[in-house]
Amino acid sequence: MFIRNIWYVAGWASEVTQGQLLARTLLDTPVVLWRDSEGVAHAFEDRCCHRGAPLSLGRLEGNCLRCMYHGLLFDASGKCVEVPSQDKIPLYAKVKTFPITEKATFLWIWMGDPDKADPSLIPDMPWMESPDWAHIEGYTHYDTNYLLLCDNLLDLAHIAYVHATTLGGDEDYARTPAKIERLPNGLRVTRWTENQNPPPFVQQVKNYTTKVDRWNDYDFLLPGLFMMDSGTVPTGQGGREGGRVDAAGFYSSQAITPETENSAHYWYCQPHNFAIDDPEVTRKVMTAVEEAFMEDKFMISAQAKVLERDPDFRMIPIKADEGLTRFRNLVEQRLREERAEETAASKEAALA
Amino acid sequence: MFIRNIWYVAGWASEVTQGQLLARTLLDTPVVLWRDSEGVAHAFEDRCCHRGAPLSLGRLEGNCLRCMYHGLLFDASGKCVEVPSQDKIPLYAKVKTFPITEKATFLWIWMGDPDKADPSLIPDMPWMESPDWAHIEGYTHYDTNYLLLCDNLLDLAHIAYVHATTLGGDEDYARTPAKIERLPNGLRVTRWTENQNPPPFVQQVKNYTTKVDRWNDYDFLLPGLFMMDSGTVPTGQGGREGGRVDAAGFYSSQAITPETENSAHYWYCQPHNFAIDDPEVTRKVMTAVEEAFMEDKFMISAQAKVLERDPDFRMIPIKADEGLTRFRNLVEQRLREERAEETAASKEAALA
Amino acid sequence: MFIRNIWYVAGWASEVTQGQLLARTLLDTPVVLWRDSEGVAHAFEDRCCHRGAPLSLGRLEGNCLRCMYHGLLFDASGKCVEVPSQDKIPLYAKVKTFPITEKATFLWIWMGDPDKADPSLIPDMPWMESPDWAHIEGYTHYDTNYLLLCDNLLDLAHIAYVHATTLGGDEDYARTPAKIERLPNGLRVTRWTENQNPPPFVQQVKNYTTKVDRWNDYDFLLPGLFMMDSGTVPTGQGGREGGRVDAAGFYSSQAITPETENSAHYWYCQPHNFAIDDPEVTRKVMTAVEEAFMEDKFMISAQAKVLERDPDFRMIPIKADEGLTRFRNLVEQRLREERAEETAASKEAALA
Repeated sequence: MFIRNIWYVAGWASEVTQGQLLARTLLDTPVVLWRDSEGVAHAFEDRCCHRGAPLSLGRLEGNCLRCMYHGLLFDASGKCVEVPSQDKIPLYAKVKTFPITEKATFLWIWMGDPDKADPSLIPDMPWMESPDWAHIEGYTHYDTNYLLLCDNLLDLAHIAYVHATTLGGDEDYARTPAKIERLPNGLRVTRWTENQNPPPFVQQVKNYTTKVDRWNDYDFLLPGLFMMDSGTVPTGQGGREGGRVDAAGFYSSQAITPETENSAHYWYCQPHNFAIDDPEVTRKVMTAVEEAFMEDKFMISAQAKVLERDPDFRMIPIKADEGLTRFRNLVEQRLREERAEETAASKEAALA
Repeated sequence: MFIRNIWYVAGWASEVTQGQLLARTLLDTPVVLWRDSEGVAHAFEDRCCHRGAPLSLGRLEGNCLRCMYHGLLFDASGKCVEVPSQDKIPLYAKVKTFPITEKATFLWIWMGDPDKADPSLIPDMPWMESPDWAHIEGYTHYDTNYLLLCDNLLDLAHIAYVHATTLGGDEDYARTPAKIERLPNGLRVTRWTENQNPPPFVQQVKNYTTKVDRWNDYDFLLPGLFMMDSGTVPTGQGGREGGRVDAAGFYSSQAITPETENSAHYWYCQPHNFAIDDPEVTRKVMTAVEEAFMEDKFMISAQAKVLERDPDFRMIPIKADEGLTRFRNLVEQRLREERAEETAASKEAALA
Repeated sequence: MFIRNIWYVAGWASEVTQGQLLARTLLDTPVVLWRDSEGVAHAFEDRCCHRGAPLSLGRLEGNCLRCMYHGLLFDASGKCVEVPSQDKIPLYAKVKTFPITEKATFLWIWMGDPDKADPSLIPDMPWMESPDWAHIEGYTHYDTNYLLLCDNLLDLAHIAYVHATTLGGDEDYARTPAKIERLPNGLRVTRWTENQNPPPFVQQVKNYTTKVDRWNDYDFLLPGLFMMDSGTVPTGQGGREGGRVDAAGFYSSQAITPETENSAHYWYCQPHNFAIDDPEVTRKVMTAVEEAFMEDKFMISAQAKVLERDPDFRMIPIKADEGLTRFRNLVEQRLREERAEETAASKEAALA
């Protein structure tokens, strides 16, 4: 059960190149992504309407896609335009397509009612394309439900434990509560910690000789977008009031999209605003982040296996769960709303 | 659900050698195949009646087979003839056996009512043992329902797409419809295509310098037998009227037997009638065929995964589906007949 | 469905070392085993009560165990004693613990009512720690229900077939019936066979030049403990009356504990009372035993697959099944008793 009337990240725009077919399952639906001769991206259901062969094994012919099992040809709207050995095209011979758009270096797909697919609903992420920030594009795959990954990102206290030697560094971090606010489409989570040991991954590129203040301010938006302004500044530089002397700033974008009920896609990057002309620094930042994200994956995958075993397990809530609990409530609320809309629509259809 | 009162190929006769036990699952039933001291093949259910140990882990002792878990010994009729540590053999200590016979280099098994197992029902394939034809025995295993493989063979238009660079060669091939006729036990499919580019796999051994005419005439019989007379002859040689000057002729035998609902055995060969004394040609023909059959397996396995995901998917039929649709109807009809016979038999038994 | 109010082997005591966390699933329950600073073993359910992360990924801190996802800290009784970012510990924040005790080089766990966990119920195995016996600790994992392994050990006639070239050696062995007696908590199985070929594994270390008499006397106790006095003595030395001139004696301890319904742990060793100062002999004995136990695993795993396929399969009993049939009845009886006790207890609770 997934929210449908919302934009999901379908991939990095750079993953889909002209002349190639990219097969990817999103929201339990196999999709093939491709670009036409003008470079415009398209998303088809990855199933020929004839005998179900995957279109991702097909052949691009100009702005058409041919199924390479029995040769049916589809135009960019999904309509079949050729059936070898017969002149008349069957009336229902068409392939489902999904609205897709490109923004902030991501491809976004809309898997609900196409009439509601308004690209202006996609959040802005100016740092993704700004010359003042540098980053490398990352991806990993999870064999767990996507919400466990959202949970993880909605309580960063875990960095003191899961990431003790990478993103964390100071157990005291977990003792400073985050502040959580409601946004129209998600939550804003902010946390200031002062007089901390510098995080190990920052030390690799900054070499602070003093304690630091640390900020982690992020919006976590439906369906699973994490956009974080974070960084460290030497303690005593007035960081809380905006002081940024010798600061190391990051502007992370992360996107989680369900693949199936029990697997998820995770795209991430960690743009930084210092030493942006030094690819070695960009690489080091990314390597450290990826090391940490493997720590998350190890923990979350292990947690998922435990949870799978016993659906009756009742968790004991703590205060630090506030963010993830509220986010899960937002998801539930949207699912209820979509169900209610569907019920209303089908009643209306029955009366008409 | 499989047709039971019919001969299925259980393997190449050469696969079962004296002194060895071959375990193979057929129609969802594990079977052990072996030969007695006269070389006669036997098929036992691969399960000791005592504690269920597989008899394929047993030991041949003359014309008997001993279970090597606790030592029960069975004669060729499946009857237990020795139980270590007791003199009296339990009344029901016997293992199920299946009629098995050898013909045309195949072993055939009958997994229905043994009283109906008439070897004369097995079709003739004289080219399999004729000195005028040469071939190599092939096999591959499918992780899909056997009918998807039957579908594939019942519309050869796919060779223009799936096998574009191997068996196919000319997209025009798909535009020439096949003629389909009913046989008592299956279908006859014939197709003449004229003025074609020579198929790449034929070019490897023939080197035509002209266009060719091509015939693919086959009987596809229940439960899954494909017997095809095919070949190419230079265009303009009167091939349609029987001209065979400089022709390359093949007489393929292929047999599909369900292993389980979701897997299948596939035995095949491609006898050829030219250069039969040149093992290099025979090997090249087989290599080309096997390359093509891997293309089929790749496509069919991908198709099967798509179909598995969504049992509600409704295919859009096209004209070229005629053969496979009619064959699936024949299968359904036989299954209905067998169910009706079973019902009648059990009613009769209840009345008696 | 497993007997719960009984001691199960949880591992060799040597497997759990101070400062390390051992994750192991027992009776379908993930458990983490560890030792406190005094070396006392503890067993926790391997699931943090907060969000279900495995505690086996946690960190030992003195006599406490910290979950390394969000940092909850638990003392040796399972009680949560610290939650980062809040002062008050939630009332139900505790982890389930299991009584565990150490005896005869094994760790024993009680997964039923803790009030009934009486260590004196654990059988004595003096040979495990006696200076007169030498052994190596062994372990293997089964992907089958544990009772198939019990079955195996309850009819040693199988050594004539499964272990023809290792533990067996003489097919005549299977023809001598074992004597089976009821013990309060299991069965006693005894078998004398006379004038046998020496077992191959004994020949590797003894080199008998005559026939031998052989004894295999064991107690097989609930839930799955095998304790066997076995050996060989040259025929004609009066072995049956106690003669042990030139005898090779073994005192095997084997323990089977269900991991899940379809998998099991199997700990074993083969103490011997000759050449105990020669590690080469101890190693050879163990190597031979392990080779034989792989033969068992191969056969039992194959049998399990056959049985899985067809739950309706009715086995044909033989006389040699007496031991395993009676043991399975004992298991069933205990399960019925435990269910009756639970029903009575819940009725009482409902009335109170």
